[in-house]
Amino acid sequence: MSKPGITPQSEDFSKWYNEIVYKADLASQTEVRGCIIIRPYGYEIWEGIKSGLDRRFKETGHQNAYFPLLIPESYMKREAEHVEGFSPELAVVTIAGGKELEERLVIRPTSETIIGKAFSEWIQSWRDLPLLINQWANVVRWEMRTRPFLRTTEFLWQEGHTAHATETEAEEETLRMLDVYADMAINDAAIPVIKGQKSNVERFAGALRTYTIEAMMRDGKALQSGTSHNLGQNFAKAFEIQYLTQDNAREHCWTTSWGLSTRMVGAVIMAHGDDTGLRLPPKLAPYQVVAVPIYRKEEEHTAVMDVLQRLVMSLRAAGIRVHVDDRDQSPGFKFNDWEMRGVPIRLEIGPKDIENHKAVLVRRDMPGKEGKQFVTQDNLAATVQMLLDEIQRNMLAQAIEFRDANIQDVTTYDEFRQVVEAGKWARTWWNASDADERRVKDETGATLRCFPFEQPDGDGVCLITGEKASRVALFAKSY
Amino acid sequence: MSKPGITPQSEDFSKWYNEIVYKADLASQTEVRGCIIIRPYGYEIWEGIKSGLDRRFKETGHQNAYFPLLIPESYMKREAEHVEGFSPELAVVTIAGGKELEERLVIRPTSETIIGKAFSEWIQSWRDLPLLINQWANVVRWEMRTRPFLRTTEFLWQEGHTAHATETEAEEETLRMLDVYADMAINDAAIPVIKGQKSNVERFAGALRTYTIEAMMRDGKALQSGTSHNLGQNFAKAFEIQYLTQDNAREHCWTTSWGLSTRMVGAVIMAHGDDTGLRLPPKLAPYQVVAVPIYRKEEEHTAVMDVLQRLVMSLRAAGIRVHVDDRDQSPGFKFNDWEMRGVPIRLEIGPKDIENHKAVLVRRDMPGKEGKQFVTQDNLAATVQMLLDEIQRNMLAQAIEFRDANIQDVTTYDEFRQVVEAGKWARTWWNASDADERRVKDETGATLRCFPFEQPDGDGVCLITGEKASRVALFAKSY
Repeated sequence: MSKPGITPQSEDFSKWYNEIVYKADLASQTEVRGCIIIRPYGYEIWEGIKSGLDRRFKETGHQNAYFPLLIPESYMKREAEHVEGFSPELAVVTIAGGKELEERLVIRPTSETIIGKAFSEWIQSWRDLPLLINQWANVVRWEMRTRPFLRTTEFLWQEGHTAHATETEAEEETLRMLDVYADMAINDAAIPVIKGQKSNVERFAGALRTYTIEAMMRDGKALQSGTSHNLGQNFAKAFEIQYLTQDNAREHCWTTSWGLSTRMVGAVIMAHGDDTGLRLPPKLAPYQVVAVPIYRKEEEHTAVMDVLQRLVMSLRAAGIRVHVDDRDQSPGFKFNDWEMRGVPIRLEIGPKDIENHKAVLVRRDMPGKEGKQFVTQDNLAATVQMLLDEIQRNMLAQAIEFRDANIQDVTTYDEFRQVVEAGKWARTWWNASDADERRVKDETGATLRCFPFEQPDGDGVCLITGEKASRVALFAKSY
Repeated sequence: MSKPGITPQSEDFSKWYNEIVYKADLASQTEVRGCIIIRPYGYEIWEGIKSGLDRRFKETGHQNAYFPLLIPESYMKREAEHVEGFSPELAVVTIAGGKELEERLVIRPTSETIIGKAFSEWIQSWRDLPLLINQWANVVRWEMRTRPFLRTTEFLWQEGHTAHATETEAEEETLRMLDVYADMAINDAAIPVIKGQKSNVERFAGALRTYTIEAMMRDGKALQSGTSHNLGQNFAKAFEIQYLTQDNAREHCWTTSWGLSTRMVGAVIMAHGDDTGLRLPPKLAPYQVVAVPIYRKEEEHTAVMDVLQRLVMSLRAAGIRVHVDDRDQSPGFKFNDWEMRGVPIRLEIGPKDIENHKAVLVRRDMPGKEGKQFVTQDNLAATVQMLLDEIQRNMLAQAIEFRDANIQDVTTYDEFRQVVEAGKWARTWWNASDADERRVKDETGATLRCFPFEQPDGDGVCLITGEKASRVALFAKSY
């Protein structure tokens, strides 16, 4: 009965992460630079994230569409900041159908340009606004350093693109979709993300303002988990997205875009995992329950499986996702395997449990005996569903506790360095320049994650300039 | 009150198709060669197809995964027929991250190669079999002639890839997934596809056997709507997909692949549409009901909308997809608009209907007065649901009638030519050579669509060779 043999988080978090990604069959490596295969166990987590978001997008009036993968190179050049931000990362198709292309095509790194072009054709008058579109797609960015899920050359995401008549409406939409992201992260992924605004240095290439949800990983690093951009009229001007007002005047639209990617799968792994492996929040777990038959002799096997299958059927009928592990392996091997894979509840049934009309439920979110309980087989589905809800709540509570214990207010640069060095987030008053922000990054490795929406009252003294500052910023090392 | 002004099908079917695709906002053209934008109204039809298939895939034990978009060029060359079939159509990335790539990457035209490579790593022993994987993805094939949905440079599809221990199991899987496709086409899309086997000439590059579902369009042409391939050991040998048997012998696996694409949206349009526009089967219609308020004076508007909204809420509560058209346009304009867009049922409410506690339901699948009925407002959701089921059944019945009226048995080549020329399908005994099949195509424009599974008893005389033939083939002009 061997432990899965994963490097402890405290020893080398990065190694722990890579090991768990591959050992839990979330992904496989490939020979294509920086690209992974998302295996079924990882893909189902993404499907959970996706369906939670898609439902919320539709509830807020958005419609899905699909735009071309390949974008004429000239489109990329129309918005000055945008081309500067993305051109170093482009993958370029130069040959197609056996011939050199007249105009080269880039694989979309994001779709503001080609969608901007379409919007300019679809939008005529104020009647066509707001236009609220989302697409589920793959994008390619030729990144230098890649890591499974967190930063891959190709990744899956959704990108929302909207056009509005006024600046106010565009700003409202930008913030609404950030709320949608936060709602999914908190309630589905049990990750207590912090909402805030990006600095000039960190905002999206071509945006007026970028908002973000920032998540804290178990090593204290920050992970930008979703962003929402108010693009102002930048893309509307670059692509001539105009509309006729009710007074028959021609105006440029105000546009937004917002994206969340398979990176979120990495967030789930790193925000909840422990030395034993994954811990998946019930709402996103591919299997919410793993059922393990306990028997010593072959003649016990049939009786145990009969009861187990009956119970499993009742759970499935209640919509609970259950996997039955009837492999020819020891219970200990199976326990370790499914703990490593992060299944929220283990259901055990043995001959003694059958005698007593009981079942054993073991929680993944609580260690050792604390997480184990004997329950009656009657109404097992209701018992399990309540326990799943409780685990979901508890995982969020644990993550909030961890987050709050690892954010520290600092007032001096020395303190700042110490906090960052200790792998925590530093919260500090800030009104310094972009150059100062870059220097802090060079000196400490910490970046300005966001100006959180939740701000202390009053003003304070800026960490760098010593001048009065009206808002605090969060700094951290990040992925 | 003007008609939508679409070219009649009888005048120019191809023109009718293009007009309806763009007028009904199913798609938009782009400047990227052969690529369309799938707009929300078209994309929702695809989402309906997708969710129907995805459910069936999961019910038959398949899991979703995601493999890289970019494939090393060398992978494509490992299976001889495969490279020959696909290399003329490849889009090639030669530059990425600002540098010329050492090994060029092709955008997947299909993923047998990169998935074959992964399977060779994932599969060790008989315990890992069968391996049943599906992916939802985009693919690119640089086609010469493109048409929205039917043949586009980039398209969306699913591709299933499975590996098995025996030839029998692989063949069973290949046929099972063809059945899944047929079930979706018949029961969701109301298209009575014909299942059959492709000839050598038409089979997939690298397959042992290819099976197909063939659909008849309203112009009598055939549309290959989904294919399922038994790949034998061809890819297993090219990519060394091997397993250890229970007796510890090393064997090559038997693999399959099967795909269905956004082409199916084109099938829905062309199998059901009429001169007025689209006719969407209720199961796939983005809106199953469009609700139109009828009023003359502004003071009637509020009262009508009150009742209408209450009824709409009761329909939505029953899971019926309803769109309310409260635009400032005449009822006639709206009737034409939604007929053109193929909504199965129109619900009208006017002041008189309110007085009589009635509602008007108008069916899209039946012409003129035949399709119109006055019903009580009580239990409207149940009435509408029954009518939607009836429309679904009727559309399938209409399509079966049309199909059967347009397939003709022929015994001479003259007859064959006449039937094909008249835009019908010719069914004929066939045991001729690949060369004969190609010659028939050159001379008549008809291709061998399939050897249908449903065969007449006994033997017959081959159309070309005059020899005894054991099976009939279906020939038709096709998309």
